[in-house]
Amino acid sequence: MDDIEISRAIIERYSKKLLDNLELDVAIIGAGPAGLTAAYYLARKGKKVSVFERKLSIGGGMWGGGMMFNEIVVQKDAKVLLDEFGVRTEKYKDDYYTADSVEAVVTLCSKALNAGAKVFNLISIEDVKFDGKRVNGLVINWSAVGMANLHVDPLTIGCKYAIDASGHALEVVKVLKKKGGVQLLTPTGDIMGEKPMWAEKGEKAVVENAKEVFPGLYVAGMAGNAAFGDYRMGPIFGGMLLSGKKAAEDILKKLK
Amino acid sequence: MDDIEISRAIIERYSKKLLDNLELDVAIIGAGPAGLTAAYYLARKGKKVSVFERKLSIGGGMWGGGMMFNEIVVQKDAKVLLDEFGVRTEKYKDDYYTADSVEAVVTLCSKALNAGAKVFNLISIEDVKFDGKRVNGLVINWSAVGMANLHVDPLTIGCKYAIDASGHALEVVKVLKKKGGVQLLTPTGDIMGEKPMWAEKGEKAVVENAKEVFPGLYVAGMAGNAAFGDYRMGPIFGGMLLSGKKAAEDILKKLK
Amino acid sequence: MDDIEISRAIIERYSKKLLDNLELDVAIIGAGPAGLTAAYYLARKGKKVSVFERKLSIGGGMWGGGMMFNEIVVQKDAKVLLDEFGVRTEKYKDDYYTADSVEAVVTLCSKALNAGAKVFNLISIEDVKFDGKRVNGLVINWSAVGMANLHVDPLTIGCKYAIDASGHALEVVKVLKKKGGVQLLTPTGDIMGEKPMWAEKGEKAVVENAKEVFPGLYVAGMAGNAAFGDYRMGPIFGGMLLSGKKAAEDILKKLK
Amino acid sequence: MDDIEISRAIIERYSKKLLDNLELDVAIIGAGPAGLTAAYYLARKGKKVSVFERKLSIGGGMWGGGMMFNEIVVQKDAKVLLDEFGVRTEKYKDDYYTADSVEAVVTLCSKALNAGAKVFNLISIEDVKFDGKRVNGLVINWSAVGMANLHVDPLTIGCKYAIDASGHALEVVKVLKKKGGVQLLTPTGDIMGEKPMWAEKGEKAVVENAKEVFPGLYVAGMAGNAAFGDYRMGPIFGGMLLSGKKAAEDILKKLK
Amino acid sequence: MDDIEISRAIIERYSKKLLDNLELDVAIIGAGPAGLTAAYYLARKGKKVSVFERKLSIGGGMWGGGMMFNEIVVQKDAKVLLDEFGVRTEKYKDDYYTADSVEAVVTLCSKALNAGAKVFNLISIEDVKFDGKRVNGLVINWSAVGMANLHVDPLTIGCKYAIDASGHALEVVKVLKKKGGVQLLTPTGDIMGEKPMWAEKGEKAVVENAKEVFPGLYVAGMAGNAAFGDYRMGPIFGGMLLSGKKAAEDILKKLK
Amino acid sequence: MDDIEISRAIIERYSKKLLDNLELDVAIIGAGPAGLTAAYYLARKGKKVSVFERKLSIGGGMWGGGMMFNEIVVQKDAKVLLDEFGVRTEKYKDDYYTADSVEAVVTLCSKALNAGAKVFNLISIEDVKFDGKRVNGLVINWSAVGMANLHVDPLTIGCKYAIDASGHALEVVKVLKKKGGVQLLTPTGDIMGEKPMWAEKGEKAVVENAKEVFPGLYVAGMAGNAAFGDYRMGPIFGGMLLSGKKAAEDILKKLK
Amino acid sequence: MDDIEISRAIIERYSKKLLDNLELDVAIIGAGPAGLTAAYYLARKGKKVSVFERKLSIGGGMWGGGMMFNEIVVQKDAKVLLDEFGVRTEKYKDDYYTADSVEAVVTLCSKALNAGAKVFNLISIEDVKFDGKRVNGLVINWSAVGMANLHVDPLTIGCKYAIDASGHALEVVKVLKKKGGVQLLTPTGDIMGEKPMWAEKGEKAVVENAKEVFPGLYVAGMAGNAAFGDYRMGPIFGGMLLSGKKAAEDILKKLK
Amino acid sequence: MDDIEISRAIIERYSKKLLDNLELDVAIIGAGPAGLTAAYYLARKGKKVSVFERKLSIGGGMWGGGMMFNEIVVQKDAKVLLDEFGVRTEKYKDDYYTADSVEAVVTLCSKALNAGAKVFNLISIEDVKFDGKRVNGLVINWSAVGMANLHVDPLTIGCKYAIDASGHALEVVKVLKKKGGVQLLTPTGDIMGEKPMWAEKGEKAVVENAKEVFPGLYVAGMAGNAAFGDYRMGPIFGGMLLSGKKAAEDILKKLK
Repeated sequence: MDDIEISRAIIERYSKKLLDNLELDVAIIGAGPAGLTAAYYLARKGKKVSVFERKLSIGGGMWGGGMMFNEIVVQKDAKVLLDEFGVRTEKYKDDYYTADSVEAVVTLCSKALNAGAKVFNLISIEDVKFDGKRVNGLVINWSAVGMANLHVDPLTIGCKYAIDASGHALEVVKVLKKKGGVQLLTPTGDIMGEKPMWAEKGEKAVVENAKEVFPGLYVAGMAGNAAFGDYRMGPIFGGMLLSGKKAAEDILKKLK
Repeated sequence: MDDIEISRAIIERYSKKLLDNLELDVAIIGAGPAGLTAAYYLARKGKKVSVFERKLSIGGGMWGGGMMFNEIVVQKDAKVLLDEFGVRTEKYKDDYYTADSVEAVVTLCSKALNAGAKVFNLISIEDVKFDGKRVNGLVINWSAVGMANLHVDPLTIGCKYAIDASGHALEVVKVLKKKGGVQLLTPTGDIMGEKPMWAEKGEKAVVENAKEVFPGLYVAGMAGNAAFGDYRMGPIFGGMLLSGKKAAEDILKKLK
Repeated sequence: MDDIEISRAIIERYSKKLLDNLELDVAIIGAGPAGLTAAYYLARKGKKVSVFERKLSIGGGMWGGGMMFNEIVVQKDAKVLLDEFGVRTEKYKDDYYTADSVEAVVTLCSKALNAGAKVFNLISIEDVKFDGKRVNGLVINWSAVGMANLHVDPLTIGCKYAIDASGHALEVVKVLKKKGGVQLLTPTGDIMGEKPMWAEKGEKAVVENAKEVFPGLYVAGMAGNAAFGDYRMGPIFGGMLLSGKKAAEDILKKLK
Repeated sequence: MDDIEISRAIIERYSKKLLDNLELDVAIIGAGPAGLTAAYYLARKGKKVSVFERKLSIGGGMWGGGMMFNEIVVQKDAKVLLDEFGVRTEKYKDDYYTADSVEAVVTLCSKALNAGAKVFNLISIEDVKFDGKRVNGLVINWSAVGMANLHVDPLTIGCKYAIDASGHALEVVKVLKKKGGVQLLTPTGDIMGEKPMWAEKGEKAVVENAKEVFPGLYVAGMAGNAAFGDYRMGPIFGGMLLSGKKAAEDILKKLK
Repeated sequence: MDDIEISRAIIERYSKKLLDNLELDVAIIGAGPAGLTAAYYLARKGKKVSVFERKLSIGGGMWGGGMMFNEIVVQKDAKVLLDEFGVRTEKYKDDYYTADSVEAVVTLCSKALNAGAKVFNLISIEDVKFDGKRVNGLVINWSAVGMANLHVDPLTIGCKYAIDASGHALEVVKVLKKKGGVQLLTPTGDIMGEKPMWAEKGEKAVVENAKEVFPGLYVAGMAGNAAFGDYRMGPIFGGMLLSGKKAAEDILKKLK
Repeated sequence: MDDIEISRAIIERYSKKLLDNLELDVAIIGAGPAGLTAAYYLARKGKKVSVFERKLSIGGGMWGGGMMFNEIVVQKDAKVLLDEFGVRTEKYKDDYYTADSVEAVVTLCSKALNAGAKVFNLISIEDVKFDGKRVNGLVINWSAVGMANLHVDPLTIGCKYAIDASGHALEVVKVLKKKGGVQLLTPTGDIMGEKPMWAEKGEKAVVENAKEVFPGLYVAGMAGNAAFGDYRMGPIFGGMLLSGKKAAEDILKKLK
Repeated sequence: MDDIEISRAIIERYSKKLLDNLELDVAIIGAGPAGLTAAYYLARKGKKVSVFERKLSIGGGMWGGGMMFNEIVVQKDAKVLLDEFGVRTEKYKDDYYTADSVEAVVTLCSKALNAGAKVFNLISIEDVKFDGKRVNGLVINWSAVGMANLHVDPLTIGCKYAIDASGHALEVVKVLKKKGGVQLLTPTGDIMGEKPMWAEKGEKAVVENAKEVFPGLYVAGMAGNAAFGDYRMGPIFGGMLLSGKKAAEDILKKLK
Repeated sequence: MDDIEISRAIIERYSKKLLDNLELDVAIIGAGPAGLTAAYYLARKGKKVSVFERKLSIGGGMWGGGMMFNEIVVQKDAKVLLDEFGVRTEKYKDDYYTADSVEAVVTLCSKALNAGAKVFNLISIEDVKFDGKRVNGLVINWSAVGMANLHVDPLTIGCKYAIDASGHALEVVKVLKKKGGVQLLTPTGDIMGEKPMWAEKGEKAVVENAKEVFPGLYVAGMAGNAAFGDYRMGPIFGGMLLSGKKAAEDILKKLK
């Protein structure tokens, strides 16, 4: 057992993994339910896909269920996805099923990684790479640099498509709008903002809004409703998963 | 789709889950690699086991690999555990294997839950339940209560055995020592403190130290080396997993 | 005496109380003097009413009197309400009476609860539930989630009417305006903002402004003056109490 | 309505109230359940008693029930006190009753004030007044002075007896021990520290420990168990109330 | 020597002082050089004048000289004021004199108090008292309330004139503009903002701008240049003193 | 008017003042009442004396009176000092007099400076200068360096005697004890710590304890009672002033 | 060895250095790569030039390379500057060279100082000195004053030209625009803001934008792209150096 | 110009540099004057030496001179080292010379790097690598991990000798003492602590104390005086440089 060899193994493997992923088919921002689902469906088709997660851990807002009661709800048409991932559900009544929120997070991520996606955690998006017409990459930095208030330059990665799955924060679309000064593909050309809670409307909209918001940049999950001005929903996660799946399927068509 | 039904489903399911787990065979503190491994081996044998995790997410110090380079190392004899959990490894050289640290965390947790363990995240341990001779429960509270500096009383759960798998923090042993004023089952009767880095020694010790530190209370993972005064190791996780397994096996014998 | 039974009793009773109050006649936001008075007059008539309070304790700005000198002033026409609640007053001169501010808070709350209202403390309002035309519920979360800066989803409750009695903060009206993008029932359609101190005007206005500010949503207490652009008053609480009473009476008429 | 008269009324009434309470029969520190109960039983017998509370609001740890589930438990022999105060209880099973924690706090305080006690909120205890042999007063300051980190001198009040009902914090006993360097009336002469959770033992001890800890200074509630080294209990409040009652009764005997 | 008598003396004297100053001829906000100079010239003529200072100590930005080098500069025409106050100056060259900044602050304040002005330190201005046409009072609170983030109501004082001498912060004018929504007596009707450094211009302007900015409300010192949009100057204090004197003289004419 | 000349005048005057005071007869730490009184009596006799004050403003704990009520009390035998400084007092009863606390601070400081003392504000004491046997200087730094958490070296000044008048903080004695490891001239050789409130004893002791605590180092004011283990007093300042006077007189004898 | 002489030497040398630099040919704000390069080329030609740096250390964003990997990249045409400074480079491929980022910072600064420039570290720019038409100086203060939140006035220095090389922060241009309300020499007259990452465009633009942005005020480095609305680049520093050189050369022509 | 190539170049070069320095002749902790001088003399002789610096920038406490006056003093016998490094000095009087502190820092570092040393900035030392008898490596982590309060494991490097040049903080010796529980090679076996200011003694001692403090671990600079209990000196840096040189020379003898 040699401490130095352990260091050597980790540095070599990580720098290789990072170098291998500097040019991606799809870069996903945010390892919450929508981002991980998108990653799963893209990786399963052999696309080179990495998920960049700001925090130490993946999962976004799914760990805590509703009000820290760690259970989630899915409706019937999304239950098939949980079945596919191997997450156990329990029927509540009518078309509502519940699942343990911790089980949902970890199992979904496990499947996405097994399908070939990579997760780079502790990485923040500072800016986009731009060619005047479309987004063609991301400007990344260690999240710890910002948390520690250090003045350190970022690095750049390239991608054919990026998916902003950062939830309410809408991190990539916001920085693009602010720094690029561009018109978005929303009805107003601007970020339209999430509306109040109305689960019925929100669940439908979140799937429809999983689409391109600017050439090269998709939104999925709550980021979609925040960009296109649709309703919010609570700890019901079916729409989130379907939204990630739809974004993946749309991009798969374009990448062919 | 009815927002109120979603609330109702979550509250009912969580309160039932919590009530069902107020009396446990084994309560594990800390959902890092040692705690989750112990949970897996205990749950697989039908024991009622819950893991209490202070943070929103499980995984402890494993997500970040070494220095945020998200890869980990395991030695050959621990690789079989990763194989059992379905975590992919890659040979580095000699007896060293590497694995993606995010994959290792989520897959391990997914297996433990699937085996029947429960995770209660966002829960801190404030104190132990004591009967004068042995630890027979834990005093729990929402972590958010402490983070928000609120003055709110805790609740109590009962258990036949508790495993302190809280790592360097050694949370349960410390509160027991401080408030109970007891002699521990360590050579000095006190918490002996983790020693400097020496991976070779540390890896062996962490398995040996997975044992009872006070009647009713086990330690596993780095908590073991911190309690019994042994060496530290870096981002090599074989010993951690084996340590969790050993604690589980010892307790299984006693629970028969 | 069994610690586990204590836990069981509290979890069962609270989850039942919460489930029983997921659909309300009236949801009141803010357990200050206006909110508690409204709760008292609504509950006394048999309406199902709950007060959601952000802090650990109820009472709002009333505990500290003026400048931490814990006495309050009421004018003659509001003294009858204090008499009804059983709060002792002492004549100062002319039409001014003083009362101990701590006695006023606790006695008023005690009466409201005795009349049948429920208080859910430590709960913040994150958003409203909306059906496109009117507010029909609230999106709630533990205040500790926000104070601890955790990323955890909220739950939803339903109500026929909500009363924003959150004082200067005007919490519900602000989130409705910001997220719903609606026109309010104020002269300008916007939040008009509290004006400077002018007790004479403010005391009258605060009663008049206790009315519907958007379909389904009332304001009471200082929230009324903040919404409709009226003057501020100091530690004189008569108008606050009368304002809560008026909102209650208006809603009672509609609920018939 | 004259803003200046409102100011004048409040300043006059408060300065009179403060001046009238500079010399007390009993000064109680902490307006939690034990302190308020003691205040009630002392004031009812015509003693001059004031409660000094560090926070803006009274109630201590009682508002939040257990883990923010705002219900409390009392055993049968303490239920009579809640009955006397007018707090509604509901039988859970055997000898356990539950009550709404908010109702318990406000109703208890309302009764204590009605019996003649005064509450000075927002006041911290900085030190004790000492005559070489016994505690004969308290050194008080605005809590805001400490919270704002200002350098402002305190004032002094006199009392025949003081009751430290500040809970785990044991504020007065700690400052006396640290600054006075005296031997306490505990078995060791020192603060012995609260022990782990054991509700059965803790509930009994908290009543027995409601006694004089140094000439002129009593402890009541959890402060008693913290001073005399006894077990902790959870959100069961019977012992707390009985403890406050016992301290009051002992002092009443001495004051005769 | 009796501790209680000391408390009694302080409480009685302060509450009398505060009650005596609830209705003022002139209320000055900010005990910096301009505010203290104005207080001196007003008090010397027998006007009832109080200075409200947010901080524990008076003096504003004068203590630290320039860049913490505790010396200040005055030009020849302001030296006569320092001579009148008894502050020693030393000729530097031409028309420039220097003085010790600490000596300047304390001596100026000592003279103002000796002339009959009162200083209420640790008091913040939360709002103005307004009668629809003019400012006729101030809404005051302990600064510690805001620093400690407490929710406590203010009190109100009345005055014939108020002088905002709060420097760059322009505290009273800002709150009047924001809450009252009025047109100021500046060329634009708005707060025009301080301009860059140009000592020559700034020193002249600061005297000219010591005038009424809204009926009942004057500005003096840097607050004048901030309100009327004039240049900034550095650690040269002649204009500040002359500005305070001019505001006092203008108000004295009106009060006759 | 030339901005650059203003800069030049301040830099030249301050650097000269600082250079002129690098070698002092007496260095006083803390510009509170005891330190300023000592400075006055030393400077009046022609000694070279500087006061080093950590904060921007002088005055210590005197500004806020008791509990922010800005009045102080002095007993009859100390009233003569206030008379000498020109601070107005008002008889309360028997031998108690009150004074405005702001007037007391600024007038006392004004007199000390006029007598020839210098105040260096914004300066912290990091360490003492030592020759193995006695304190012969102080190690000073800008307070802002510590407040901003910067890593910047200090400078050193020399003195024949130093007076620690830093109050409860006892800044210089503490650093001497901690870093020098010396025996103090107290009965125990250690810092004995301030005792509880007992104004009668404390007032006498604070004068007696104004003496040498280590060769070259005096204490005065509350620092004396903190060093020699005596009682505390409240906002009564006679002893503080007499204590500063006694320290000055003792040192004057030695300096002859 | 005499501690007092060490103090004396430092105070004398620094006050002389500061007085000697109160009137400059060129004042540079920000000691990053662009500012230091400009300082080098100006000082080499005998101009009186000082660099004002907000932090304790010079170097700006260059120390940390990209993502804390302390290497930088330069393209071929900028490599000649590193050669001139004596910074070692290593060819990566094509026209890319890498250098150690720490070596680049310290060697560049060492050369600039050797050429005659001065660095005043720990100094912030609070404002500009203005004569109505052009910037003719800077208003400076210790950075520690702001970091410690102290209220202390600044001092003023004069200069023929100032270069804002403060990077993205654009400190001087922002304060000029905000306080002076002037039209800048940019196409819009306003600060146009940095655009997203596009290294190719950004590298060219940063050299072109090193020009006068307002009479008397230049921009260099990233401040140029932030002022004139051009693209961002990552940890490639050739453009930065060339930009500093160009600003220096333009000013040299004007100063002749 | 290709953004991705820039990323690739930096990642490759840094990972190679880090891998090449996992096994060192000498690891130096702290890039202040002592550490950099030691690095210079070791690297010049062909030893493999890296300096690990906690902060973004090197230089330690040298940048700020004394009290932010950025000049330093050296005595005659250390001036030869500054001459060798190319740092310009100016004679003050007798044997004292002054230098610009910024020039001293950057030039010294530039020379050390040119001689072959590497600096790894932004790296903290968490622990030592130990073989039971001697220190044989360091446990390192990104400083940002600690600053951001993240839970991330460190990595390990190996070295023949380590030099703790971390100044007063004595980082490595402290962690060794605390975790290893070893006897140091100091007279007491413990860390003896820095004594008060006495430049004459301190300057001599700091050179003598540049020696082995535990097998494998040296101290240099102020760390030496802190370990061996010697006097402190102010902003005089001759001893620091000579101390670094002596540690280097001693280690060079052993490495032969």
